[in-house]
Amino acid sequence: MRFLKGHGTENDFVLLPDPDGVLELSDELVVRLCDRRAGLGADGVLRVVRHDDPAEAAWFMDHRNADGSRPEMCGNGIRVYARYLVDAGLAAAGQVAIATRGGVKVVDVRSGSVVVDMGVAGTGGVELVGGIKATAVDMGNPHAVLFVDDLAKLGELHPDRPDLNVEYVQQRGPGAVAMRVRERGVGETRSCGTGACAAVVAHVLSGAVGRDEPVTVDVPGGRLVVTWRADGHVLLDGPAVLVAGGELRADWLVG
Amino acid sequence: MRFLKGHGTENDFVLLPDPDGVLELSDELVVRLCDRRAGLGADGVLRVVRHDDPAEAAWFMDHRNADGSRPEMCGNGIRVYARYLVDAGLAAAGQVAIATRGGVKVVDVRSGSVVVDMGVAGTGGVELVGGIKATAVDMGNPHAVLFVDDLAKLGELHPDRPDLNVEYVQQRGPGAVAMRVRERGVGETRSCGTGACAAVVAHVLSGAVGRDEPVTVDVPGGRLVVTWRADGHVLLDGPAVLVAGGELRADWLVG
Repeated sequence: MRFLKGHGTENDFVLLPDPDGVLELSDELVVRLCDRRAGLGADGVLRVVRHDDPAEAAWFMDHRNADGSRPEMCGNGIRVYARYLVDAGLAAAGQVAIATRGGVKVVDVRSGSVVVDMGVAGTGGVELVGGIKATAVDMGNPHAVLFVDDLAKLGELHPDRPDLNVEYVQQRGPGAVAMRVRERGVGETRSCGTGACAAVVAHVLSGAVGRDEPVTVDVPGGRLVVTWRADGHVLLDGPAVLVAGGELRADWLVG
Repeated sequence: MRFLKGHGTENDFVLLPDPDGVLELSDELVVRLCDRRAGLGADGVLRVVRHDDPAEAAWFMDHRNADGSRPEMCGNGIRVYARYLVDAGLAAAGQVAIATRGGVKVVDVRSGSVVVDMGVAGTGGVELVGGIKATAVDMGNPHAVLFVDDLAKLGELHPDRPDLNVEYVQQRGPGAVAMRVRERGVGETRSCGTGACAAVVAHVLSGAVGRDEPVTVDVPGGRLVVTWRADGHVLLDGPAVLVAGGELRADWLVG
């Protein structure tokens, strides 16, 4: 079984090229692949399979979290996925349409970074996290954003509201925030693309900055840049890197 | 750059085949390879290079910990290393001699497990760990073994005595112990081969069992079997698995 390993701001993935969709990707296999000592190790798996409606998009991103669950979308994952498509010659650099469980997304693959149009953010609600009011943002998956005075003073992120992705955001000025994130089904990660988008949407809603202004989001794994456009779309920009590739041992996968 | 990924009881390694010794394996590169999100992820790196004295052993194990340091020996590492030599056709199954910084070791590569003769254990001393007297065992690298009533009641293993590998051992009967380990230069790991040997040597010294009796050692990552022979040699037996292999991205390594 062929694989690649890549990451976007240290949100890391095992990619499994499976153009014809012949791979049986069970939850158990996903868990074993993502095991950081007995397997390859990753936050999730991205199976690269042809989409059943080529007029809409040539490729479908079958994304699984490390526990086997199927999230709607993954902003860092789709950027790494697009990097692979272009590197492997399966798509031309520039604008690439990719189908996901959260709909078709358009990705702009450049040399240094990959930008994805994450679609229109859903806003307006409030969620309670640990008894505190948080800004609810729907990025295809559900987020709750909590503003904090000092990220360095936060201890372990508690698993309250396991049904939500929860962002802890420190506002550093109009054009800059820092964030830690606890992802649904994964735990705390080094980065979360939809989480960075949700953080900037909440930052704009707080009145700190206007629409169409790029905001840098510092996460433990690096730096992303998010722009909430006047038309409602959210753009996520950042590095996407393929580290290695090769073959998995079939006998190990069976065992 | 070619690589393989393997583990012995979840003590995991990136192997770098470099028969002619042309690879510049800097500490920085080791740290990047072992990074569990931006790199491949491992407890250490094993560079596979020809030994300069073929009459003694055909291959030398250049072992680095995740921080770049150079340990004398690694019981799980040498078992995975031997599995690779046989799988790659670089050595015949059965007895294989491998040079290490701790001297030449003889490994017996079988189908299900790999047994390594870890040499003669050095005993007789006492070390203090957190103010408590521990049995000192020299397995080519220095160990201190502490007996505890219940491993489940131990919290985080504190980095007291960073100059030693420290084993916390629960005695379950004459032929069985369980262990947690904090490795020098790595932190707590899922398993440690020389640590399992040290645990059984201390178990025998405590009078729980005699020489030449196999003792199972349950570690978080699986099960090892250790025998302290009457002639002083310690045999370490357990699984050794290669999970995947392929190519690392040269551009990522340079960047």
